[in-house]
Amino acid sequence: MAGVYSFLPLGLRVLRKIEGIIREEMNAIDAHEILLSALSPKDVWEKTGRWEGFDALFKIPAHGENEYGLNPTHEEIITPLVKHFVQSHKDLPFGCYQIQTKFRNEARAKSGLLRGREFGMKDLYSFHPDESCLQKYYEMVQEAYWKIFERLELSEKTYLTYASGGTFSQYSHEFQVVLPQGEDTISVSEEAEKQGKRIAINKEIFEEGKTKCPLTGGTNFREERASEAGNIFKLGTRFSDPFDLKYTNEKGERHCVLMGCYGMGTTRLLGIAAEFFGNKDGLSWPKSIAPADIHIVPIAKSKDEEPFKKALALAKKKDCILDDRLDLSVGARLADADLIGIPTRIIISPKTLEKNQMEVKDRRSGKVEMQPLQ
Amino acid sequence: MAGVYSFLPLGLRVLRKIEGIIREEMNAIDAHEILLSALSPKDVWEKTGRWEGFDALFKIPAHGENEYGLNPTHEEIITPLVKHFVQSHKDLPFGCYQIQTKFRNEARAKSGLLRGREFGMKDLYSFHPDESCLQKYYEMVQEAYWKIFERLELSEKTYLTYASGGTFSQYSHEFQVVLPQGEDTISVSEEAEKQGKRIAINKEIFEEGKTKCPLTGGTNFREERASEAGNIFKLGTRFSDPFDLKYTNEKGERHCVLMGCYGMGTTRLLGIAAEFFGNKDGLSWPKSIAPADIHIVPIAKSKDEEPFKKALALAKKKDCILDDRLDLSVGARLADADLIGIPTRIIISPKTLEKNQMEVKDRRSGKVEMQPLQ
Repeated sequence: MAGVYSFLPLGLRVLRKIEGIIREEMNAIDAHEILLSALSPKDVWEKTGRWEGFDALFKIPAHGENEYGLNPTHEEIITPLVKHFVQSHKDLPFGCYQIQTKFRNEARAKSGLLRGREFGMKDLYSFHPDESCLQKYYEMVQEAYWKIFERLELSEKTYLTYASGGTFSQYSHEFQVVLPQGEDTISVSEEAEKQGKRIAINKEIFEEGKTKCPLTGGTNFREERASEAGNIFKLGTRFSDPFDLKYTNEKGERHCVLMGCYGMGTTRLLGIAAEFFGNKDGLSWPKSIAPADIHIVPIAKSKDEEPFKKALALAKKKDCILDDRLDLSVGARLADADLIGIPTRIIISPKTLEKNQMEVKDRRSGKVEMQPLQ
Repeated sequence: MAGVYSFLPLGLRVLRKIEGIIREEMNAIDAHEILLSALSPKDVWEKTGRWEGFDALFKIPAHGENEYGLNPTHEEIITPLVKHFVQSHKDLPFGCYQIQTKFRNEARAKSGLLRGREFGMKDLYSFHPDESCLQKYYEMVQEAYWKIFERLELSEKTYLTYASGGTFSQYSHEFQVVLPQGEDTISVSEEAEKQGKRIAINKEIFEEGKTKCPLTGGTNFREERASEAGNIFKLGTRFSDPFDLKYTNEKGERHCVLMGCYGMGTTRLLGIAAEFFGNKDGLSWPKSIAPADIHIVPIAKSKDEEPFKKALALAKKKDCILDDRLDLSVGARLADADLIGIPTRIIISPKTLEKNQMEVKDRRSGKVEMQPLQ
């Protein structure tokens, strides 16, 4: 069905590696990994006024006149949960994140993994006693996000994009990756770019008349198509207020906790990386998220022959996929290697074995060289 | 809400370790890991007659008169998916599994993680040209399951339990763990037990009058309360038939693929292990799935003091949790260590440091000994 995908073994490996990179960078800023539920009771959504107001919320009829939500986001779950653990200012600040499946009742699903009805997301929520603490955390998460985009080899084409902030904050921020297949339009600040910074404003705030770069004040923009891979918001007391999430400060006064939320689409990043690095021959994954480091194609008629045995021995030592479809033509197998897009392709054949060598090809540059068989 | 749970950091670590053990044993029998969708279109359920017939299936109203299923099981998803990849007998046999969240519209959720509306499962599906191939695979999965129960330290209390087989097979099999909190009743064969085998029959088939042990023919049974941690079924052509999943044999004839399915509850196993190993003081995890190997309690007034510094140095070398709540009483912190139930508890205090030692306590035996600080 449109907007809903299953992952086969190679795609799942890419997804797990993307999740692994995000997890490492979240752990590096001391965020705690948790796993929230996908179902939710109706009353938490009524409390925040979003049972009726949130068009993309799937509502599930259940036994006994019950109705559940199928969560598109988790503020309504995390806020009452965190209430069990926050009493005093000493319990703050902290952040919790999860990597989980989200669901959205989209009228029109489109662009494959870029806008799904069911998709993977990392969502981080942070909790603070005051605005300056929230601001500091917000900037720290921005830095963590840039590290993630660097590790995905996407940072050079990613723009920190100013977007509407809601009632609590003037702006929120999106991490937009420039991509012809993207469904957003952003205005890239050319003045910021001259200063070596990748800043943009999104279409919505541009149309609201905020047509200056918030960082440089510059007014020269270049329009780009882009895909939103992450977004970060200051929620303020939007959710702590209805759930009465309060802490006691040093003077014994009770105040609402301030919250931030920080999303990043894991399956969407997979889709972005697939589109971004692919070419007419197929996919071309960055090494950090490729399904494997090496794709080995042994050229042999049977598994008893030397090229296959050497390939198998190599495969046991490395992070590899080994093409054992010996009854297929070599041409078809090499075309599949390009399609799958693992960074390094190795051919072991009777000919390369004459000199105890293997043929090593780099997927991106196309450069081929002979190397001694390890 | 009842039957729906969020996982906090320590529980999530246990869940991930259970998943890791299952994943390793599935990979060891060459099953391919995939990830199927949680949502499904109505038509696949109509094709198998289960849109109306499956009471526990959540049906979600969506935009534009659409209705989706929220999958409680994945035969309706995997079968049409696999059809893209199976042509000939040469493509068989194989197995695919996933570790994923399932949803069931239960009238009454109960016993915490033991019967939820949302729960984690590993489900493996296998595909075969003939009955003997399916039988061989079925037995191989049984062996893999026993290895998993051994690694979870549950095998001594787990019984391979004969259950109704449906139209294709006389029996299916459940892996039932004897547990006072369990919601099933099984009849354990005492003759089988004398032969060193853990065999039982479930209540349903006992009440059908099948009151002989299928393995030994014995008629002496002992009733036990138990919880079903896994179940395995021969599906035969139940799903390949409606989806027309066929292969071509050596003679060029087209035949329906035979299927098996093999479930194991990941969150339920967490619940079983929690109940099974816990005592009045709290949890007591097996080492293989504990949230950490070691729980360190430094006794110090501040993080500048030696016991805390030594504890931190140790924590960096081991899989640890470090209790840094230095403002809490030592008694409260030690009680929490018992509650959390990590196998080994280490105390580092000014007193233990006099001899450059630490106090090491085994959670299960309660045995305490002094060891040199590493």
